[in-house]
Amino acid sequence: MGQFELTVGDIITICGTFSFAVSGAFAAMQKRLDVFGVLIIAFATSVGGGTLRDILLGDVPVFWLKNANYSLLILVTAIVAMIFWKKIKSLKITLFLFDSLGLGFFTVVGLQKGLAYDLSPGICVALGTVTGCFGGITRDILLNNIPLIFRKEIYATACIIGGLVYLLLSYLNVDATIVKVVSVSVVFLIRIIAVKYKLTLPRIY
Amino acid sequence: MGQFELTVGDIITICGTFSFAVSGAFAAMQKRLDVFGVLIIAFATSVGGGTLRDILLGDVPVFWLKNANYSLLILVTAIVAMIFWKKIKSLKITLFLFDSLGLGFFTVVGLQKGLAYDLSPGICVALGTVTGCFGGITRDILLNNIPLIFRKEIYATACIIGGLVYLLLSYLNVDATIVKVVSVSVVFLIRIIAVKYKLTLPRIY
Amino acid sequence: MGQFELTVGDIITICGTFSFAVSGAFAAMQKRLDVFGVLIIAFATSVGGGTLRDILLGDVPVFWLKNANYSLLILVTAIVAMIFWKKIKSLKITLFLFDSLGLGFFTVVGLQKGLAYDLSPGICVALGTVTGCFGGITRDILLNNIPLIFRKEIYATACIIGGLVYLLLSYLNVDATIVKVVSVSVVFLIRIIAVKYKLTLPRIY
Repeated sequence: MGQFELTVGDIITICGTFSFAVSGAFAAMQKRLDVFGVLIIAFATSVGGGTLRDILLGDVPVFWLKNANYSLLILVTAIVAMIFWKKIKSLKITLFLFDSLGLGFFTVVGLQKGLAYDLSPGICVALGTVTGCFGGITRDILLNNIPLIFRKEIYATACIIGGLVYLLLSYLNVDATIVKVVSVSVVFLIRIIAVKYKLTLPRIY
Repeated sequence: MGQFELTVGDIITICGTFSFAVSGAFAAMQKRLDVFGVLIIAFATSVGGGTLRDILLGDVPVFWLKNANYSLLILVTAIVAMIFWKKIKSLKITLFLFDSLGLGFFTVVGLQKGLAYDLSPGICVALGTVTGCFGGITRDILLNNIPLIFRKEIYATACIIGGLVYLLLSYLNVDATIVKVVSVSVVFLIRIIAVKYKLTLPRIY
Repeated sequence: MGQFELTVGDIITICGTFSFAVSGAFAAMQKRLDVFGVLIIAFATSVGGGTLRDILLGDVPVFWLKNANYSLLILVTAIVAMIFWKKIKSLKITLFLFDSLGLGFFTVVGLQKGLAYDLSPGICVALGTVTGCFGGITRDILLNNIPLIFRKEIYATACIIGGLVYLLLSYLNVDATIVKVVSVSVVFLIRIIAVKYKLTLPRIY
């Protein structure tokens, strides 16, 4: 992010950081936290997945310690979110949309990083899923909400399908940028469709 | 695990991974999670302790990123657990037995790894205890149960005693395989006896 | 800590370890945990912040695995706390004072370590804040309390202000020992004043 030329990967990371910061800020405002609490939750939501990814891989100091731009982006995003709070009609839908976007972006970021570490494909999908889901899990645990991931609609499954699409398209030699855009969209759309049509996975009992 | 010849250490790790995957899968089914939720909880319970151990030691990428066989074992275990779910009469007892077994196996795995890193003996016992207990703590926090470790019966204390037995027998030059088998059994039996006879530690108030 | 000559940094770390061990032990006794539960919570509270700091930085094995003196100090502190439990008139105030002291000590320890890793100043303040706050967050989550950090009085903000004071005084070439003592005091006093006068940050809703 410190460079003047951004790669597609950088842009996806920035979009994911922004999306999860928005979802964290709105979730914190719903719980009536003070100004600083909103900043903390926006930060934890936004960096949570990538931090766990870097720790699991051993790529330390973790990304936001090495590059202050992430913290700056989250700070600005949270402040803007607080200012525009009242202009937004449905907080619930806004929160849901940004959570789903962040999920898609970070799934792809995590998966790519796994590939860069030469991990086996299945493990890369798992790492992408962990990266995508952990920010939201952190947000929900800190706010004492039931984690979205354990509510009834399809959630982590969207990351897995998105990750498999990524691997399939890469295997078919599709252009790298298209692979990324399609994979993010797949995760995002599965979430939208799952919530809209209340799609659920079967239970065992 | 990728080798055709397994060491005693490998077998203990496999048994621990299997035991905690079973306990995680059953705990998730008790909470009526969907198929994918059962897989996630089985996975988190099974790799939780070893992941924290590797992160604390700095042995990264953590074990399940480097070796896909663990994920495969957990996947198969969780699927089998879901299929045989209805054939098992007492879920509560099954869950308890596999949790206790996993506790014993992983305490020994963690302790050994500490010794391999030349940490002082007391710290190795602490690392074994953390490795043994953290999978179950993760499972209970994710499922919003009160962690087993903080309920009234002896839990982490079993790991500490098992760890001390391991150090004592090693010091007495007992055969390494016997040391491991005895230590795992000690942790397992202390849990069984503690729950059967409702043994508790004193409180201060 | 293994040396006979202690630096100011060592003394601050020891004081922070001691303070958070006391706060953890008292919080666990309030919840009527057994003897071993008190030890675990004292340990988790005391090493939590520094463990996350070391993991984020990649300084592994983490400090308490490398140096058994920390565990020893926490063990002795927890035992002494259990013995003197009944002599203390107000547990609530004692817990609050030691939590505030630990917060100040560990904020400075974390910030210094960030500077030693050549991280940018703002990130060092964030790392100090994480180091200061995470022990208490771990304690409160394990005991199923609402984290102090998300209650209404100023908490993490005290760490941030203390961190900024540290940077400012260092920039003005004030003596290093004075910088540390003043920064710890600032965090501690802000907490005392915030709770005494019920100072809160504004909310957005």
